[in-house]
Amino acid sequence: MFSFALSLDPQGREPMYEQLYSAIASAVREGALPAGEKLPSKRELCARLGVSRSTVETAYELLRAEGYVNARPRSGYYAADYVALPQGELPHRPAVQAPPAPTPEPLLSTSAVDVSCFPYASWAKLYKEVVYNSPALLQRGDPQGELCLRQALAELLSQYRGVRCAPEQLVVGSGLETLMDQLITLFGPEAVYAMEDPGYPAIRRSLTSRGRTLRYIPLDGEGMEAGALESSDASVAYLTPSHQFPLGITMPAARRSRLLRWAVTTGGWIIEDDYDSEFRYGGRPISSMQGMDRHGRVVYAGTFSRSLAPAIRLAYMVLHPALLSRWQALYGRQQPTVSRYEQTVMARFLAEGYYSRYLRRVGSLYARRREALLAALTQIPGLEISGAEGGIHLLLSLPGRSEAELSALAEAAGLPMRGLSAFCHQVPPRPSTLVAGYGGLPTEQIPELAARLQAAWSAGTQGEVIGYRS
Amino acid sequence: MFSFALSLDPQGREPMYEQLYSAIASAVREGALPAGEKLPSKRELCARLGVSRSTVETAYELLRAEGYVNARPRSGYYAADYVALPQGELPHRPAVQAPPAPTPEPLLSTSAVDVSCFPYASWAKLYKEVVYNSPALLQRGDPQGELCLRQALAELLSQYRGVRCAPEQLVVGSGLETLMDQLITLFGPEAVYAMEDPGYPAIRRSLTSRGRTLRYIPLDGEGMEAGALESSDASVAYLTPSHQFPLGITMPAARRSRLLRWAVTTGGWIIEDDYDSEFRYGGRPISSMQGMDRHGRVVYAGTFSRSLAPAIRLAYMVLHPALLSRWQALYGRQQPTVSRYEQTVMARFLAEGYYSRYLRRVGSLYARRREALLAALTQIPGLEISGAEGGIHLLLSLPGRSEAELSALAEAAGLPMRGLSAFCHQVPPRPSTLVAGYGGLPTEQIPELAARLQAAWSAGTQGEVIGYRS
Repeated sequence: MFSFALSLDPQGREPMYEQLYSAIASAVREGALPAGEKLPSKRELCARLGVSRSTVETAYELLRAEGYVNARPRSGYYAADYVALPQGELPHRPAVQAPPAPTPEPLLSTSAVDVSCFPYASWAKLYKEVVYNSPALLQRGDPQGELCLRQALAELLSQYRGVRCAPEQLVVGSGLETLMDQLITLFGPEAVYAMEDPGYPAIRRSLTSRGRTLRYIPLDGEGMEAGALESSDASVAYLTPSHQFPLGITMPAARRSRLLRWAVTTGGWIIEDDYDSEFRYGGRPISSMQGMDRHGRVVYAGTFSRSLAPAIRLAYMVLHPALLSRWQALYGRQQPTVSRYEQTVMARFLAEGYYSRYLRRVGSLYARRREALLAALTQIPGLEISGAEGGIHLLLSLPGRSEAELSALAEAAGLPMRGLSAFCHQVPPRPSTLVAGYGGLPTEQIPELAARLQAAWSAGTQGEVIGYRS
Repeated sequence: MFSFALSLDPQGREPMYEQLYSAIASAVREGALPAGEKLPSKRELCARLGVSRSTVETAYELLRAEGYVNARPRSGYYAADYVALPQGELPHRPAVQAPPAPTPEPLLSTSAVDVSCFPYASWAKLYKEVVYNSPALLQRGDPQGELCLRQALAELLSQYRGVRCAPEQLVVGSGLETLMDQLITLFGPEAVYAMEDPGYPAIRRSLTSRGRTLRYIPLDGEGMEAGALESSDASVAYLTPSHQFPLGITMPAARRSRLLRWAVTTGGWIIEDDYDSEFRYGGRPISSMQGMDRHGRVVYAGTFSRSLAPAIRLAYMVLHPALLSRWQALYGRQQPTVSRYEQTVMARFLAEGYYSRYLRRVGSLYARRREALLAALTQIPGLEISGAEGGIHLLLSLPGRSEAELSALAEAAGLPMRGLSAFCHQVPPRPSTLVAGYGGLPTEQIPELAARLQAAWSAGTQGEVIGYRS
């Protein structure tokens, strides 16, 4: 009846029609049933297999629908011309690498934040209300983001950061990398990017993975060196003027003005990543470069992943109208990358004061923690601390010791920290320097941790740790 | 005292120190206070302005902190060297274009879906439970997506779509465009993309906006023409085999096999966008190409934006281990683009059966609607319907009339529909054809709408609508 073995199991888990279908389909796939060969008639198959007519009909119909067999009217079913694939697996098919298990953040990681006072109940309550009251939010939303959210953001940014923008200029996205990716497309493949050195590795990776040209511009005590930028061929400068990552420099107004002037006179763009501007200790935050800019050369960008939590995937940017129309041409028909539910929750979170209350609470928590940390660290002889005026990380330098040695000793003491060179393209501007985040550091453990660090480093001085000296 | 007018308003809204700070800062910015000029001493300023010492001290400290003035020890404060910006606005600074108001979807839009039976209460309840029980979800998550979600997805895809994958091969992202953008980066700038013609405009836009090379491959009755693909220089083929958009073709197994063979023998890649596979009417869905592929050439991609709702920004793709390691090198240190809260809600939504119950409910709703629509449309003389075997749209052809005429008459009757040529790069494979979605069409209105359409088109035949005849 068939040129291949056909065995069906009436007690099998799969229904009979499914077994019949599978057997014939794989025979076609593997060439056991060559193209054009006629299949037994339904009647014949019923009789031979002792199955019901509907079993055969269902199987044949599936085979026909999926193109394994062709039906010729008043003639019957024929195996289709199925192109056999080359046999076998790829010779070196690699095994699936399990993704690295999500390790807990190291205590002094620069990306950790404290979420202990996050208003879980309020967030969940707002979400529930939004879902119950707004069924229309399941439908397509505004590509730039919910208007209510953009209004709340425009209000927040103008009030706290001196940003000048209409809600219409705002675009929201699921994280700074998402928005940066859009900007990379917007500025085109010819753009040359001036990057702070040292700087933020994630943005560098976004740029290099997209094949863009980068120029690494050194920093001085005021941020990106203006002369070096001016003599480069860069067309876009990526800056973190509020709290330079990782040096912690707050760029003075005069430097801001000079860099703005570079953009205006060369037709360049500035991406102002207003990193960690939410947390300042003493003094007042300097308002944004975007607010100083009268020529539309600054793209202002920010995120809630530091001020609220890394898992809140909501970032925003302010585009000058000229850039906005380019954005709309490219992305104006796509859906936003953030759920409309969470956008609307965030709009209410901002507009109803939850955010500013949270920021006060977590800001004073970080301020107390920073005080405790500075007090404890000053006990370590020779240690120099910098970049501590804002944000939730600082730099520790111990002159005369190598960065690798300091880092290895700290890690051996259970306090891994990255050396400054991890963020540098060229030679680090400061030797002997580590970067310590305190966003995730429990305040009460600080004295003990500082003592442990001191012990580790002084043990190293006494020559007990071998092999790190250069 | 100053070379510029300084007027403070004790009754003003801003505190005095702020007013003083602003006046001096803008004098520095605008050059009224030239670089190097000495400021009055604090004592002198207090006396002249009649303000308290702390007012002056705060203002000077802000000016110093922001770099507007320099303090020289035992000498006083001096205006900083502030680089003045060229004056004025850009000559043609465009006005902010208000984004197009979110118009309600046209009744027959192909992107509308029915969310009337979405389980709002269950979704909100799950979200609340997730927020209350999982405070750790606010911290950084797995770049590929929550493991619980990837496990639930792997189970779903293997069960319903015959996809072979481990949870480790899955990557989630905030929409198909987001994942497509990652693939575009992964495949590099040299890749040449074979696109279905007609095809899905959003993916074409993603590719062209990234400067990629596209080849438009015509379709025959079984989907992308294999010969045309094979004789092209394409290295990546983007396919919608379950339910081709917009023609609605289900690609038979033989064609799938031949296209797979192209990928295997040329080292090409296939992106299988399993568009609308959730909704089939009669017959069984053909299982995925990825499941047929033994050589790791297929990237399987899907989204919940059609099966659940457009605003649920959650899509997924399955990467062969070789591609996965490239993905991890590029994106393995970024945060996922979807909120961990909503990822975890979706994982429970899948694992606890909410999704399959919802799919049954909405699937039978669409099936009833489709029945009603087909019944009503067959009343229109000469109308040919195609592509209706799955998904939530179909094609209407009225031979002998131009597409533009049919479209204009339908729009005049309040039933805008896009013509097939809107999705075509070359000449449409069928003349006189419109694309009608019924995802958002209220079932009870169908008889009336079909009658309206019939009236509009037959009125056109009688020459009552002028100007559309070519």
